[in-house]
Amino acid sequence: MAGAAGIALLGSTGSIGLQALDVIEAFPDRFRVVALACHASVEAVVAQTRQYHPELVGVADAAAAEQVSRALRGTGVEVVSGSEGVVRCGLHPAAEVVVAAVTGIAGLEAVWEAVKAGKRVALANKEPLVAAGHLVMAEAGRSGAQIVPVDSEHSAIFQSLLGHDRSAVARVILTASGGAFRDVPLEELERVTPEQALAHPTWKMGPKVTVDSATLFNKGLELIEARWLFGFSPEQLDVVLHRESIVHSLVEFVDGSVLAHLAEPDMRVPIQFALSYPERLPRANPAPDLARLGALHFGPLSAERWPCVRLAREALAAGGTAPAVLNAADEVAVSWFLGGRIRFTDIPGIIESALAGHQVGAGDSIDGLLAADASAREFLERDQEKWTSSHA
Amino acid sequence: MAGAAGIALLGSTGSIGLQALDVIEAFPDRFRVVALACHASVEAVVAQTRQYHPELVGVADAAAAEQVSRALRGTGVEVVSGSEGVVRCGLHPAAEVVVAAVTGIAGLEAVWEAVKAGKRVALANKEPLVAAGHLVMAEAGRSGAQIVPVDSEHSAIFQSLLGHDRSAVARVILTASGGAFRDVPLEELERVTPEQALAHPTWKMGPKVTVDSATLFNKGLELIEARWLFGFSPEQLDVVLHRESIVHSLVEFVDGSVLAHLAEPDMRVPIQFALSYPERLPRANPAPDLARLGALHFGPLSAERWPCVRLAREALAAGGTAPAVLNAADEVAVSWFLGGRIRFTDIPGIIESALAGHQVGAGDSIDGLLAADASAREFLERDQEKWTSSHA
Repeated sequence: MAGAAGIALLGSTGSIGLQALDVIEAFPDRFRVVALACHASVEAVVAQTRQYHPELVGVADAAAAEQVSRALRGTGVEVVSGSEGVVRCGLHPAAEVVVAAVTGIAGLEAVWEAVKAGKRVALANKEPLVAAGHLVMAEAGRSGAQIVPVDSEHSAIFQSLLGHDRSAVARVILTASGGAFRDVPLEELERVTPEQALAHPTWKMGPKVTVDSATLFNKGLELIEARWLFGFSPEQLDVVLHRESIVHSLVEFVDGSVLAHLAEPDMRVPIQFALSYPERLPRANPAPDLARLGALHFGPLSAERWPCVRLAREALAAGGTAPAVLNAADEVAVSWFLGGRIRFTDIPGIIESALAGHQVGAGDSIDGLLAADASAREFLERDQEKWTSSHA
Repeated sequence: MAGAAGIALLGSTGSIGLQALDVIEAFPDRFRVVALACHASVEAVVAQTRQYHPELVGVADAAAAEQVSRALRGTGVEVVSGSEGVVRCGLHPAAEVVVAAVTGIAGLEAVWEAVKAGKRVALANKEPLVAAGHLVMAEAGRSGAQIVPVDSEHSAIFQSLLGHDRSAVARVILTASGGAFRDVPLEELERVTPEQALAHPTWKMGPKVTVDSATLFNKGLELIEARWLFGFSPEQLDVVLHRESIVHSLVEFVDGSVLAHLAEPDMRVPIQFALSYPERLPRANPAPDLARLGALHFGPLSAERWPCVRLAREALAAGGTAPAVLNAADEVAVSWFLGGRIRFTDIPGIIESALAGHQVGAGDSIDGLLAADASAREFLERDQEKWTSSHA
């Protein structure tokens, strides 16, 4: 044994971060935490530091970083703050794998720098590929960085493609659970609450992702992510509704064969695969028991119920800065919804208005993409009265 | 293009043979028939010869061979007879792929010789691996022969394993449609007719295989075949009921991941894969449309309804000559059932009696296995009054 692989965990206090620590803890001979980064969860990251003994802790929020620094005084652990602190965690020299599990566009810079440094990136953070997939993948090609997806859908596609020639792929089909409101009558959708949106039927995830899975905006992001991660054309990417979240995606080949990846809806399965790849490590979690499940259901997506998938496809087709704007608009809209300021059904309209108000640019630099992101947020903030005032 | 690959098609007039010709015909630049062999279907093989222009035609039945020879006089096609004629077809020097689609143990000799000669064998004929899997696989290891399965289940496993480390496999799960009588009340099973048995709900196959899929004896054979083809232990092999015949088998890995192969229930899909492997060729047949299918159902096997699976497991555990006897007894029992001489529900009892009456030998030579096969048939023929007289 060459010793445990060093892990930098960015977003350690979020849902994916906690589950990644669960996996790491199960294999102390294989993995060790060398750096932890979070946004502002002081108590959680201090406790994690005492448990996992990283050498470096990054806290994006400056005030929170100050508190963490104070709490860890005398431990010898270095605490760094701001987004540049998070970036530094990903660049820790002993980090063989960078788990990118920050929520939202905030993760882009750290992923970009880790990719530039040629690190293996276990990517849970969708936004870097959504906003800047063309740049990130080109940079990975140059640096030799390997990007192993953590999203269950992309992990499924990644695993189904291993050993198969990509030129023989006809289509990639992402599965969508349909989220919390798949069975709510359309006319009642405008009255659903944030609490209801956060009750996902099959997956345990963070709040932003859970709302995105109710609007299926998530699936739109995943289509864009798949486009860059695997290099398939938008026409090759499809979505099918699958209530049970057991089949995580499917790859269809030109000869009529399909390979599908199945697993219990437990993020620790794809997280562990991304950490151990190309090996597989045994774990206590059982595989799905099909005989006990009885049936797996599939259905078409309703464009009326889930307009966000169409919006994502439109942004992908527009290219350049459009996906960054799409993503920024959703982050704003979801935060307004979670804050009780808009209705659930306002989310797609807000995204559409941001896309309509945006002059698509080339998006050929990270700075340019971040500027597009910021301008979309400003546009919506200026316009917020229009959306939030109509809400009861 | 290096020219079309030469194909020797053994069992050309059976169900798999006809579907193989369908595939070959679709890709005239890729495949050409160099030899055809059948049992005794004179008209069919003569017509095939005129259409596909093989250099060599084998006919196992001597009288039929004589008729074929007469019909093809002047064409320059060589006609050979007897089982040695079939073997010669498989050994045709221009045959790069031998499609072994003979029904029953009759195919063993030709497969054995093709494997010894180091040919690529596209194996549809289950019995060679069932009766002599340990010998055939050891010989393939020595000669470098590549065995690519044509059975949909084994093709599914083969495809799901590509690119994955076999030591990471926890379990292989074969799917079973349940055949023609899966929904017939148990107490009515003894009255079902051969005609009813031949009406398979999802697959189009030959009569022996269709009856075997109603008793699930087929699944027992496939467990044994999988044991040898992939080297997994009997404990790693499982069966799940799956009515739609869309998921053709599943491979479960130690990390809780499962890869499944899906395709329409059309034997041309695995036949084409076995011919074109490692490439995939495009075909008109579409992949399954999950959204349209709506649901895939799974369930446990009933040991009471399908005792043949247990019998196959027992023969596999006994080893040596036991699987050859299991197989011979089923061939006899199915022919009796198709001839209206026994009831459907007598089949497992007949197989069990043959196994009970057999002294298991080492089975370390093809001749020894063929002798065990013959002695099981004699045993049952001697005993046939016991089974056939009670039948109304």
